[in-house]
Amino acid sequence: MFFSFEGIDGSGKTTQASQLAETLRQRGYEVVEVREPGGTEVGERIRKLLLDPESQVGARAELLLFSAARAQLVDEVIRPALDRGAIVIADRFYDSATAYQGGGRQLADAVWMRALHGFATDRLAPARTYLIDVDLETAEDRRGARARADRMETTGRSFYGRVRDAYHDLAKAEPDRVALLDGTLDPQ
Amino acid sequence: MFFSFEGIDGSGKTTQASQLAETLRQRGYEVVEVREPGGTEVGERIRKLLLDPESQVGARAELLLFSAARAQLVDEVIRPALDRGAIVIADRFYDSATAYQGGGRQLADAVWMRALHGFATDRLAPARTYLIDVDLETAEDRRGARARADRMETTGRSFYGRVRDAYHDLAKAEPDRVALLDGTLDPQ
Repeated sequence: MFFSFEGIDGSGKTTQASQLAETLRQRGYEVVEVREPGGTEVGERIRKLLLDPESQVGARAELLLFSAARAQLVDEVIRPALDRGAIVIADRFYDSATAYQGGGRQLADAVWMRALHGFATDRLAPARTYLIDVDLETAEDRRGARARADRMETTGRSFYGRVRDAYHDLAKAEPDRVALLDGTLDPQ
Repeated sequence: MFFSFEGIDGSGKTTQASQLAETLRQRGYEVVEVREPGGTEVGERIRKLLLDPESQVGARAELLLFSAARAQLVDEVIRPALDRGAIVIADRFYDSATAYQGGGRQLADAVWMRALHGFATDRLAPARTYLIDVDLETAEDRRGARARADRMETTGRSFYGRVRDAYHDLAKAEPDRVALLDGTLDPQ
């Protein structure tokens, strides 16, 4: 089975993904954890390119680079793991692009995004996506001082508000796949 | 104005693109020549990634990487050049992806390809595309011994046949933009 965890930065999704992986391992399952855009040689090089301030990647190029890394991750890691019966847990998958670049940056509409994701993943979708939802203030507090500076300087509350709205839209559009969980509850 | 040149390897398109650029420069125009995936810092790094045998880029990731390089090239080079009144001549543009990866490798259908190109280029299309058409035997002779080895080992005549067919389909679908020129005539 293939699960993904989604949510705004500071939602606690990484904690939840790790705990699920640990619980499943304790029960004897092979679990493969993945996190974009790394996990493959190609993905690591894309990650370096995206992080390098010298490269100044444009918004559309960035979305396509993330998609390329995802395509490679599906082919090299996720599909082979699923084929041998392992459980794959992704800390962010294509819904992050829909929420951050579609919703947050308003870069592309939902129909085009779905087509892009379908191509990049060769139609592989998570069996279940856990969307860890927290209000913007809670997420900001968890992200701490760096986030507060970031908020003032680059993105702003309205950016994360749009990302969160896009996530909520996804949960409404695909209720069978996307489970909305309250991220302000006790992690356990 | 923005022109592109297309054709199978060995068609002579690079010769024609250079000659047009030279002619226009002699008449006093500023001409910017571009060739994918290079031409930007991001594009050069993508080119290295694509050429490195260690990275083993998958087919879908490859198409997305070429598209990312194109998006960056449009933003950094082509749009600014057009905005200041220069003429841009591209030796291959998105039609190459349609022909090689859509037609040759049968990786994606034409509708999806058009959507991808529209996104990557932010809806920038060449004013005119010169498709230099030669039969497969002529192209193979021009490419020489390396091409003959390549043909045997990796792609095959049927591959270039599908590429050429896809180019012909483009010329039929967009006759106002794509001009089909006989590449077996004297270059001048």
